[in-house]
Formats: sequence, structure tokens, C-alpha cells
Amino acid sequence: MADPSLASTPDPPYVAVIFSTQRTPGDAGYAAASDRMLELARVQPGFLGVESARGADGFGITVSYWRSEADALAWRAHAEHLPVQARGREAWYAGFELRVARVERTRSWRPSG
Amino acid sequence: MADPSLASTPDPPYVAVIFSTQRTPGDAGYAAASDRMLELARVQPGFLGVESARGADGFGITVSYWRSEADALAWRAHAEHLPVQARGREAWYAGFELRVARVERTRSWRPSG
Repeated sequence: MADPSLASTPDPPYVAVIFSTQRTPGDAGYAAASDRMLELARVQPGFLGVESARGADGFGITVSYWRSEADALAWRAHAEHLPVQARGREAWYAGFELRVARVERTRSWRPSG
Repeated sequence: MADPSLASTPDPPYVAVIFSTQRTPGDAGYAAASDRMLELARVQPGFLGVESARGADGFGITVSYWRSEADALAWRAHAEHLPVQARGREAWYAGFELRVARVERTRSWRPSG
């Protein structure tokens, strides 16, 4: 997935959608769809940021940040997102856990000097 | 980090600590310390599970799950954990974001048949 870096999010509270996935082997259109979904998510109302990492073993975590749960649910129901979710279950994922959470406390750190 | 797989967590609510990090190049004792912290976290009161992924670019996300925020804070203050946190800022991380969140809604999926 594109843009694997730290997301600068506003002060809490806000919503985090933690999407943990085990990929099946091979691409099968995954990379292109993933890039497109990221591009589309970024322009949704209430989108605050996204972080994503996947290891060579195919296990990955993507956390998207939203102003409200309603904003996260609207993205879930987006007309272009729904068929991609179905494709994920059919082809790309060997399993996933999705957790919707309310961020209450944060700490940022960058090296000084 | 060891054990990169989906965590089976109980029904919400529970607490997620989302730790997003950019690693500096090289190991410098990171892998051994990371394994030890995982081993130690697993036996702390209120520990529910952990998921972790890091890409080849050094960007990683580790999410640990806890019964309560008090349990997560106790782990943060653990005598063996504190010097490792300091070492992280000195040597291993080029930056991090830590977010404490309350998980309110979950969805699990595994392939059927």
C-alpha cells in the first residue's frame, strides 16, 4: 500500500478503524485496488489520515482515522468501496479482524536536535 | 517482531494501544528487545493480544489489546519496559505515534468451506 508513514492526526477524540489482514499469496489485482481505495478514502468527508504496514509474510495492519464513526461508516458504504470489500473476501484475504475504536489519548515523538 | 498474526480478542469494549513507528536503519539490539517485550507483555494482567506488522521500508504498526486502560498503563510503567522505551527513543525509532483507543465494535472474517 502506498504512503507508509506516520499520520498527523488532530487532538483526540476521533475514530480509528484498525484493519488487520492476512493476505493470500499473489497479487490478483490487490495492489491497484488498494492504491485506488487509499486515493478515494483520502477525499471522503471526515478522513483524518491512514497508516499501513505489511510484512513479507503477508500479515498487515492498516489503521484509518476518522472524525466520527458516522464518517467511517459512510466510507464503508461507499459505492466504489463495497465491491472491493467483496473482492477482498473472495480473493485477497485469508482472514481479517476489523476493530472500530475511539482514540482518547495520544503521544507523538520525533527526535530532537 | 515475533508472531505476526490475527489476535483473537474478546467482545468489546476493551482497549487498543496503537503504536506506529518508523525504524532507524540497522538492528542495534532491537529485535532481541522486541521479542523480550512481547514475551513479557503476554504475561501482564489484562493482556488480551497483540498484532504487529513492519514493511521493508521500516514503517511498522503494533497494536496491543488490553482489558482496561489501567492495565495498559501498568505495562507502560513496568520496570523492565521503561528502559526499553528510553532505548527506543535513543536508538531505534526515527519517530512514533502512540494512540490509546477504546474498541467499541469489531468484525472478524475467516474463509468459509
